[in-house]
Parts: sequence; C-alpha cells; structure tokens
Amino acid sequence: MANIHDVARLAGVSVTTVSRVLNNHPYVKREKVEAVNQSIKQSGYIRNINAVNLKKGKTNLVGVVLPFLDHPYFAQLIQGISLAASVHHYKIVLYQTGYLEDQEMEALEMLKLKQIDSLIICSRKISLDIVERYREYGKIVLFENGTDTSLSYTFVDHYTCFMKALNYLYDRGHREIGFCINRLDGTNSGQRERAYQDFLEIKGLRYNEEYIFKGCHYLEDGERVLHELSGMKHRPTALLATSDQVAAGMITASPTYNIAIPDDLAIIGFDDQPIARAMNITTVGIPLHSIGELLLEQTMSETVSHKEVSVELIERLTV
Amino acid sequence: MANIHDVARLAGVSVTTVSRVLNNHPYVKREKVEAVNQSIKQSGYIRNINAVNLKKGKTNLVGVVLPFLDHPYFAQLIQGISLAASVHHYKIVLYQTGYLEDQEMEALEMLKLKQIDSLIICSRKISLDIVERYREYGKIVLFENGTDTSLSYTFVDHYTCFMKALNYLYDRGHREIGFCINRLDGTNSGQRERAYQDFLEIKGLRYNEEYIFKGCHYLEDGERVLHELSGMKHRPTALLATSDQVAAGMITASPTYNIAIPDDLAIIGFDDQPIARAMNITTVGIPLHSIGELLLEQTMSETVSHKEVSVELIERLTV
Repeated sequence: MANIHDVARLAGVSVTTVSRVLNNHPYVKREKVEAVNQSIKQSGYIRNINAVNLKKGKTNLVGVVLPFLDHPYFAQLIQGISLAASVHHYKIVLYQTGYLEDQEMEALEMLKLKQIDSLIICSRKISLDIVERYREYGKIVLFENGTDTSLSYTFVDHYTCFMKALNYLYDRGHREIGFCINRLDGTNSGQRERAYQDFLEIKGLRYNEEYIFKGCHYLEDGERVLHELSGMKHRPTALLATSDQVAAGMITASPTYNIAIPDDLAIIGFDDQPIARAMNITTVGIPLHSIGELLLEQTMSETVSHKEVSVELIERLTV
Repeated sequence: MANIHDVARLAGVSVTTVSRVLNNHPYVKREKVEAVNQSIKQSGYIRNINAVNLKKGKTNLVGVVLPFLDHPYFAQLIQGISLAASVHHYKIVLYQTGYLEDQEMEALEMLKLKQIDSLIICSRKISLDIVERYREYGKIVLFENGTDTSLSYTFVDHYTCFMKALNYLYDRGHREIGFCINRLDGTNSGQRERAYQDFLEIKGLRYNEEYIFKGCHYLEDGERVLHELSGMKHRPTALLATSDQVAAGMITASPTYNIAIPDDLAIIGFDDQPIARAMNITTVGIPLHSIGELLLEQTMSETVSHKEVSVELIERLTV
C-alpha cells in the first residue's frame, strides 16, 4: 500500500509538505496542495488513524466497564453514554467484565496504554485504591458515590432511596419486609444492606436472614424467589425487588404459586424500566439514560466533578 | 513524559535495543535487558499502544454497527459478540447508528482508517454496494442473507420462519392474520413481507393493509397496537408480533382493552427472550447469543464464509 513517501515522490514535493496538506496547514501554495491531493488519489494512499492519534495523543475512544450487556439496566446506561459520546465525536469501547478483576484491570491498562482517552466504570469488583492509581493516565469516571476518592463520579443515594421504599411499605402496614439483591459485596448493595439494618433497628423489627434473596438480577430470578418463598413457613408480606426485571419475574410466576400480588405479597421494583410501566409495577425510578449522558460529559470535562441524581418512588399497583 | 529515547539514554543502550526488549526479542544480553527495564521504571516510560498498533498494523478492536442498544435483541447479540471477542483478546467499538446513513458510513470510514480491524454489521440502512466497497480495508461480516455480495455473513431465513408461523396459525383456524413490524425497508422485513404476500396468495386470503402494524419495536408499541386494534371494525384474530417485547406489551395491555389472549387474539412472538419464557409466549426462537459468537468468529477467519442459523417455533400459551 502507498505510504506518505510515495505520495511525496509522485507529487514532487517533500514529505513535510504532504503532511502539511493532510493537516490543512494554512501556508502551502495552492499548486502544491493540488499536486498532493492528485497524487493521493493516484497512489491510493490511506491515512492510518493510529498514526494521527499517536501524534495528537488521543484516540476519540472512551472505554466503558460493565459486567454484562444483556440486562436493561446496563443497556439503558450505555445507550445514554453512547448518544452523548457521538455529540463529541467519540466512540465507545466495551469492557464487558463479568465482574472478573483481571478483565477490569485490562480496561485500566488500556487507559494507561492510550487505547482509550478516558474510562467510565459503571460497576466494578476491584478496589477503588487500584482504580485511583490509573487516574494520571486519563479521566476516570465512576457511577457510584466515590466520596473517598479523587475521581469524578455520578451517583444515586441508594441508602436514602432504599430507606424511603422501606418506609413506604411500613406505612402501608407491612412488618415482614424482605429484599432481593444481586451481589452483597457491591457498593450499592452495601448501602442497601445498611439501610435495611438501620430501618429494622429504628422500627424495632427483627432481622430475618431468610428474607434476603441473593443472586437476583434477571427475570428468571424472580420466579426462583417465588419458588423459595412458597416453601417458607413464615413468609415476608413485601419485597423490594431491586430490579424491575426481578419484580416482573415474580409477577408472571405468581399465578403458578398461587400468590396474589399485592394482597399476599407487595412488590417494589427499581429503575422504572418499560416493563415496570407495562406491568404497573410500583418502582423507584432511576433515570439511567440521563445518568449515562452525565457520565460521558464528565469524561470530557477537565475538572473533577460530583453529581447526585435524584430518584422518585412511582406508585402503581403492586403495593 | 519519557519517550523511548530517554529510556535508551538512561540505560546506555541504543533505541533498537530498547525496542527489542519491549518486544521480548530473544537475542538481547541479560545485562542489557535489566538495564532497560531499570530505566523504564526510573523514567516512568509508558508504551503507547497506538505506536505498537501502527507497527503491527492491527488494533485488536472490532467495530459493531447496530441501530440501538436498549433493546434485548441487540443487547443479546452484542453480549455474544463481546464474549467471543474476549477469547481472541479483542474488544468491541460500538457504532450506534439509529439507522442514520452517515453514522453507518462513519463506521466504514473507521475501518478504512484502521481504527478497527474488522466490522460486524448487525442491521443497516445503507446499500450493500457501498458496504462492499470497503471490503479491501478489513473483514466485514453481515448479520443477514448476503447472497449477492462477496462478504461473510450469518443469517436466519426470515422468509421460511415467517411462513412457518403463518401456517401454524392457519392450521389452528386463523384466517384473519396480521403482523407487526419495525421498519418496512429492512432486509429482514422485506423477507417477512414477501412471505406474508405469498402466504395470502397460496391460501387465497385477502390482503388487508390495516393488519400490518408498523413502527413496532418496544414493549410500549405492543400497547399501541392493542389500542389501534380495539378501534377497528374488522379485527385480525391473530398477530405475528416479530418481537417478544411487542408481544409482551400486547399481553400486559390486553385486560385494559378487554381482549382475551389467545381467545380474542392469538399472538406469536420472535426471539425467545426471557420475557417470552416468563409470560408463556408462543414464539420463534432465535439463538441471538450464539449468532453473536458466530459473527465474531467470522471476523477472525481469513476466508469468506456463510452460515445459516436454524430457528424453531416454540409452542406456549398465546396461540
């Protein structure tokens, strides 16, 4: 394939002149510009964007770390990130990690190696100490409360919104309240767990480990929860599903287990996904699309910033 | 920031030697290797992956063109692509196009400029003629029947599977059958439209334009269809929803419009998404995750290949 030297030779000019023409340098004679453009056409020369990026020191790529893509929560988030990125002529490189630490490290290493200009971490397993060590290599933005770090972040106060949902159920007479969660070691899960413990203490209610359903993420998990529930002697009367998907799974399975919603079991979802609107699920609305946009804007900014996104409890028919 | 020349100076070796150490060249004296590694540490030298890529002529990035991400169809597809990519140490660059031709062109141009090594086109608006012009710049793989092209592709025979679903409804007594579709100008939609026309002709049934519901893609669209349907004088007795999302939206809206499923309206979905399993929707199963893996494998292969993926009608409770 033709290179810049071939173009210069064909045009009868220096390589510097070709480079100036390619970069739209203002002080090149018109005849030379025409000769260069002509010889680019003739030789079939193609500019390699990596050479350009190398010189500019940027790639117009932003990395996004997330555990999986086949869940509406992350799909909506990335849709928001992606749309905001195109406004800035950036594209997204996906680091789908499955919560594996070495996969997350790979994303950080790629930031260091300048495969990407910046990195958004939507959800993670590795410690923030490790993440912070990479901040000198490019902007890193977290989707969590990163108060103890020097990084930019956007977050939802999961403690407060969990507490609000629990009180909502309490005010409607529920005393046996449980919740579903995906993994207990995540930052958001930790906040929810703390809110739950504090709530029980404030209200003088008993902690029942059976009422915490782990590994809940997909629609199918909702059915599993109902299956477990149906075998319990003392059932909770209400559940925070922490995902509309899981809530929807419980509702579709409820006739099978002869559990009436909300009479036998009240359910509050999370996120306000389309399925929550379609199935009239009471839920905590989280504007994931806008959050995605905010995260991307933070990667573009020179300054470190922190944004809290407010959420609202949306009353429908499952409580 | 330190560059390769600084490292060489500090180590007292040539730039060539530093380069050999960086590339694990076998014939470098051990003392020199140690001196170079020592001076890399001291100088804080960071290798720029773009320089490495420039030299190797590859980026380990594969581009994926799709219209949107917040739909389970594309989310599952990309999940499959992404998992297969990590096996090959490749990452995905997303080109979310919203079916805008200039966005699709950008992906092709980036293949030409070597931002990516290869490109998977999951769904498109631009003509295949234009796509084919870029095949010299890297592997392009289509998720559609690309018989008339010189490109690799994986496809589902939408004509046959639409015909099968229509006959299934016919055999159960339905004569007034309609369908929902997203856009009529897509390749898959064209095949479905053709199957529908042929089916009506074979069975001697009347074509009724009212029975074709356009712009159907999301859960919300299912409700809109029921709303339209409820205002019709002569309603279809069965619908092919061409997406489980749309089918699910119809089912959740059905009590509102007092339409019993399947008695007043039989529904067949497409894809066999988790929601179809949860809601017992009769559907045409399309293994999107495996298709994603196949598409990625085709980008890695030197040869041009064509793969047809078989699908099956899954009988549940909505017909």
